[in-house]
Amino acid sequence: MKLPGKTIERLSQYRRLLLNCLGTGKTHIYSHELASMLNLTAVQVRRDIMLMGYSTSLKKGYDINELIKVIGQILDTRKGQNVAVIGVGNFGRAITGYFMGKRSKLNIVATFDADPLKINRVISGVNCYPIQKLPELVRELNITIAILTVPPDHAVSVAESLVIAGIKGILNFTSVPLNISGNVYLEDYDMITSLEKVAYFVKKNSSV
Amino acid sequence: MKLPGKTIERLSQYRRLLLNCLGTGKTHIYSHELASMLNLTAVQVRRDIMLMGYSTSLKKGYDINELIKVIGQILDTRKGQNVAVIGVGNFGRAITGYFMGKRSKLNIVATFDADPLKINRVISGVNCYPIQKLPELVRELNITIAILTVPPDHAVSVAESLVIAGIKGILNFTSVPLNISGNVYLEDYDMITSLEKVAYFVKKNSSV
Repeated sequence: MKLPGKTIERLSQYRRLLLNCLGTGKTHIYSHELASMLNLTAVQVRRDIMLMGYSTSLKKGYDINELIKVIGQILDTRKGQNVAVIGVGNFGRAITGYFMGKRSKLNIVATFDADPLKINRVISGVNCYPIQKLPELVRELNITIAILTVPPDHAVSVAESLVIAGIKGILNFTSVPLNISGNVYLEDYDMITSLEKVAYFVKKNSSV
Repeated sequence: MKLPGKTIERLSQYRRLLLNCLGTGKTHIYSHELASMLNLTAVQVRRDIMLMGYSTSLKKGYDINELIKVIGQILDTRKGQNVAVIGVGNFGRAITGYFMGKRSKLNIVATFDADPLKINRVISGVNCYPIQKLPELVRELNITIAILTVPPDHAVSVAESLVIAGIKGILNFTSVPLNISGNVYLEDYDMITSLEKVAYFVKKNSSV
């Protein structure tokens, strides 16, 4: 069964919050607590948790460790997946540093760039390879996912070479719309959309 | 009338694509073209466009310039809004550089940090101020929106001081859940959620 993308986003958010709760010593949690932390309804949270095939809600709420385990079975693969960052500007560097050591199941194993000053150096803890070596290293390092942070005018051509190299999923941060064919999953993120959303609600809330 | 957040996200994405199309010399566009570029249905696109109060679909499609104007009337304010980036690490720096000059209606007018080595320097084209000056500068520069990119262990306390300083909207990139009170609009973005979503669909599509 393939769950909808929006459900997967929420499962990821639940896990993040649950891991946070564990850190504070909490062992059980109610659906309405999770809901209020994410601006959802408790009904929505319970529906998601049922959808995962988990239903043991005790009087004291869900067992946090159990929930984390069940979410992991859905989101993660046993061995984890290897990720490459393509384009090591400020943004690529920030992302690499941000992810390092955060999730053991998603490992950034390589970064790629065209700049000779960056190539063959360790950047944010990960080796930077020349972009020409992409096909070879995707195979060798078993990289399935690419995070795309190249300059806009290179986005389309680099994305094509990612597909040819056998990448299975792309997280596109370039704000350039990509036309990806075949069996490759594409997720776009544009910060401007998030910022425009904030701006809209600020305008509506306070008539700036 | 306040439109739902998901609609606002789509309007922002439409505008981005429409601006792209203008760049290629295109003057009109069909709903199904916009739809296919964003993996939506044409019905969804037409519904959104009607919701904006725009309905003049010609035989040759919507007038791109007109659509951009109508979306602007919904999303933008006449004078624009001023934005501050709080925390000038790799990520804050990347965001500042990324936004500079992209949208005339959302201007990054200041960055803030606690590091003496960054304060009073121009970073990615914007002056960096000491975080203590926040309340004063929010007033003076009429800053309504903050982009939060401080280290995780500072997120909660800095967010509180943003609210006290009179910020109306926060775009939170710290991955720390914030509890914002009152009339302040909060939008969270966690890259890990996007990456876990890609990883899930890669797993489902290709049984990695």
